[in-house]
Amino acid sequence: MDLLTKNKVNSTPLTPLTFLDRAAIVYGDSTSILYGDSISYTWSQTHRRCLQLASSLSSLGIKKGHVVSVLSPSTPAMYELQFAVPMSGAILNNLNFRLDDKSLSVILIHSESKLVFVDILSLSLACNALDLFPENMQRPELVLIEDDTLAPHQIHALPNNTYEGLIAKGDPNFKWIRPDSEWDPITLTYTSGTTSAPKGVVHCHRAAFIVSLDSLVDWSVPNQPVYLWTLQMFHSNGWSYPWGMAVVGGTNVCTRKLDAPTIYRLIETHGVTHMCAAPVVLNILLNFNKAEPLKNTVNVLTGGSSPPAAILTRAEELGFNISHGFGMTELIGVIISCAWKRGWDRLSAVEKARLKARQGVRKAGVAEVDVVGGNGESVKRDGVTVGEIVVKGACVMLGYLKDEKATAQCLKDGWFYTGDVAVMHEDGYLEIKDRIKDVIISGGENLSSVEVEAVLYMHPAVKEAAVVARPDEFWGETPCAFVSLKDELKETPTEKEIKEFCGEKLPRFMIPKTIVFKDELPKTSTGKIQKHVLRKVAGEMGSLSLSLPPPQLLPSRI
Amino acid sequence: MDLLTKNKVNSTPLTPLTFLDRAAIVYGDSTSILYGDSISYTWSQTHRRCLQLASSLSSLGIKKGHVVSVLSPSTPAMYELQFAVPMSGAILNNLNFRLDDKSLSVILIHSESKLVFVDILSLSLACNALDLFPENMQRPELVLIEDDTLAPHQIHALPNNTYEGLIAKGDPNFKWIRPDSEWDPITLTYTSGTTSAPKGVVHCHRAAFIVSLDSLVDWSVPNQPVYLWTLQMFHSNGWSYPWGMAVVGGTNVCTRKLDAPTIYRLIETHGVTHMCAAPVVLNILLNFNKAEPLKNTVNVLTGGSSPPAAILTRAEELGFNISHGFGMTELIGVIISCAWKRGWDRLSAVEKARLKARQGVRKAGVAEVDVVGGNGESVKRDGVTVGEIVVKGACVMLGYLKDEKATAQCLKDGWFYTGDVAVMHEDGYLEIKDRIKDVIISGGENLSSVEVEAVLYMHPAVKEAAVVARPDEFWGETPCAFVSLKDELKETPTEKEIKEFCGEKLPRFMIPKTIVFKDELPKTSTGKIQKHVLRKVAGEMGSLSLSLPPPQLLPSRI
Repeated sequence: MDLLTKNKVNSTPLTPLTFLDRAAIVYGDSTSILYGDSISYTWSQTHRRCLQLASSLSSLGIKKGHVVSVLSPSTPAMYELQFAVPMSGAILNNLNFRLDDKSLSVILIHSESKLVFVDILSLSLACNALDLFPENMQRPELVLIEDDTLAPHQIHALPNNTYEGLIAKGDPNFKWIRPDSEWDPITLTYTSGTTSAPKGVVHCHRAAFIVSLDSLVDWSVPNQPVYLWTLQMFHSNGWSYPWGMAVVGGTNVCTRKLDAPTIYRLIETHGVTHMCAAPVVLNILLNFNKAEPLKNTVNVLTGGSSPPAAILTRAEELGFNISHGFGMTELIGVIISCAWKRGWDRLSAVEKARLKARQGVRKAGVAEVDVVGGNGESVKRDGVTVGEIVVKGACVMLGYLKDEKATAQCLKDGWFYTGDVAVMHEDGYLEIKDRIKDVIISGGENLSSVEVEAVLYMHPAVKEAAVVARPDEFWGETPCAFVSLKDELKETPTEKEIKEFCGEKLPRFMIPKTIVFKDELPKTSTGKIQKHVLRKVAGEMGSLSLSLPPPQLLPSRI
Repeated sequence: MDLLTKNKVNSTPLTPLTFLDRAAIVYGDSTSILYGDSISYTWSQTHRRCLQLASSLSSLGIKKGHVVSVLSPSTPAMYELQFAVPMSGAILNNLNFRLDDKSLSVILIHSESKLVFVDILSLSLACNALDLFPENMQRPELVLIEDDTLAPHQIHALPNNTYEGLIAKGDPNFKWIRPDSEWDPITLTYTSGTTSAPKGVVHCHRAAFIVSLDSLVDWSVPNQPVYLWTLQMFHSNGWSYPWGMAVVGGTNVCTRKLDAPTIYRLIETHGVTHMCAAPVVLNILLNFNKAEPLKNTVNVLTGGSSPPAAILTRAEELGFNISHGFGMTELIGVIISCAWKRGWDRLSAVEKARLKARQGVRKAGVAEVDVVGGNGESVKRDGVTVGEIVVKGACVMLGYLKDEKATAQCLKDGWFYTGDVAVMHEDGYLEIKDRIKDVIISGGENLSSVEVEAVLYMHPAVKEAAVVARPDEFWGETPCAFVSLKDELKETPTEKEIKEFCGEKLPRFMIPKTIVFKDELPKTSTGKIQKHVLRKVAGEMGSLSLSLPPPQLLPSRI
């Protein structure tokens, strides 16, 4: 039999950029973006503005393979740039606007960025970062993104180009630059670096295309949702939903402010149906005293650390339908999610929350996910044996920019090693127990800091909790809890009370031996608690066993 | 900058077969298949049965690249084989069980099929087809698919293997054979051949994967739908929904009978939410006298010829939510669909039907679709200028098996030429006017047979209508209508009345000059009216102008 294989027609590179051309036709007269009182675009406007912007980038000398950076919260400009930058052929480098100037300059130098779009509120940060460049080094050009919704700003060093200026100058009939191959890079995103120097994750057009589609299927996103940007788009490419919204012709509600009153107001005003939210945003919403039950269900996709059951229950009471997943920058969005089964609807709220707190199963577009032990073999499906999550499929990054060593460390034996520790339940759903480096080894037992934190979160007075290892001469390590308490408490609990509370729910060796109360826990700019900072604090406390009577028994699981 | 490109981890071949592994986890205890009173499987059972079947195929000597055929209506076995055959590494060849033995033998010889799974009701057909093989030619092995829901059958030549026998012998821990490349063939499907010899369309794993996902997004299919198989799975691979149902964990309701009472009963009994249906099935449902409004909305995806407005209006009245699309075997399912916009909800029923009758826009996973004139340039977006639909993207076939010439004829200049004639409306939605060969050229005017048919369908007495060219010495061609009438009419219309009815709605040159009443119009085994048969009949009628007074005026559009 003659062997047929790919041809020119069916091997057109997969790219999410074609979604925007289509949205301009299908949803041309529907709302694409809403922001403040003044901005309301249609999809045909968004399409035209992106083409004009891409054309102006070309005129400025931006070429295929150049890096173009964006330093902005989730504004309309930030949304448009998710398309416009790659439409010019450039690689899109979303930057975290909460970084300090030093970190920012390191990234801009490392990425060899040619041009930086800067939100007006980040302009001085960007200028300071450029000032830190070595004298003989070419600095990227800045383009100012102004914002009419803000009070007028005094700007000391006005860049040559403004965002709207580039759009006005651009050609709406520009033929956007298609990738030569679907493996060409589309994004360069630096990890938030909770523990180490930021690494530049490179993803290709193919990954963005596939993850955009299967994320919509996985979350059952219908046509024309109203999507609120509570997630920062710089955070792992907005979990692919900037591109996904063009597929379904959604309305993107943009906002700078992420406080509870603003979010609740936007939900009500615009009839929000969907939002992605980091756990910290979910906390803000649920700890808001004046929260009233929602008029219509809002579907929330949350990732990062597992939401404690108490948080999930509270969310459902208010009318949020929480979906929970797991993703990371290296996997361009959420790639494991806790797929809900119709049969679970009948269960109790507590049981539902327990099931929902699990990260779950791979999305349909991901080839394989497993939890493996040190020998590379799948762990037992017993909900107890821990291993590392490994992933295979189109969602996996091309690699870390200019870092072959780090790339080789996580891409090996045909798998991407996530560095996250999980168990596999009997039903094939996995549940994250910890980052590998956050596991506490006490008396030879592997102890999940996340499990201890989940119990601390159940205490009615606890706002936030983080558990890290405190070195110990006898036990090796002991769990040390850092806790912040809720505001306006009538009585504040003592260290002893917290320990007793944990003792009711945890085996003895998992009870924190140390409790440290803090007003605020240190966080990264993306809202993750910085365990490496706390670990350092715990490390400096020294061994606990020296100051206590020696234990009589080795700990064991109860 | 160092160039990163694909690696072993992210270039895992895309294949829809991974959907089933996932379904066994996510929807393991949910219903996968329902059939008659006796069959109800869960997804974990379906997964296990497919692995066992694939394992037995391997044991029988089936290897990567072999062709394995299936001759069956949409039964549970047919569904399982959509996974099990490619899981053995073989290429799945779905056969039309309504073919005659001669056509079937031609296909089996051409495809070099090694093994044919045969539904019990098609066994004699299959045996007859094998009898037509040249004596010295290796015949494929037959495997009998029995069916407990049927009355016992006398079987003359029992094949060595039965379907359930192979499942029973198989290994549930079989490691299914993954494709070496996503461009490896997964299916071989012969076109129904309305006009020419059947051609063997070959699709690859990648196409099946992408079309499965974007079809779910395009039709907004939620998790766990109840899907009724009114579409024959052999018809363009069931428009990709056999694989798609594994993604969303749907319940596949299988049926042999496609009469109106059966379909309505299944809808009610199982709470059907989705079904795909060829126009002929839609006709059966809507012409059923006893049809009552549905209790719950049933989403119907229909393709093929455009449903006349009257049919669409009637369907909506009963509670069917019709989506309309365009696809063909060469494009592995529906790839253009009439994406609905929220704003259209407010329009009148007639206006809605008019919009919905258009084929629409490409799905998000398709790279490009256009309508081009003879010069290869896009036609004007004026709703009038006709051109040929061309397509580019992952949905396009690898080619026709052993037919380089036919492959080269439709895959050229970077496009797949569909052979369908359409106009592009101002809003970017396309509307099919005809197959290229069905366009009638009368007095130099291109005349769409489909438009004339749409008017004929509006006549209350008309059941089916087909318009073809009748050769004419003066006009070149004139439109000739073949019409069947509804049963139990009080009065049957005359030829003159039908022409007058058309005259009220069509320009003069489009009014059929000849009306032929027939009890039944000739159809292909997939229910399409065979215009080439009618064209032959019209051709044998001879020129009309010879028997009529010569026309005084050249026709013109009114």
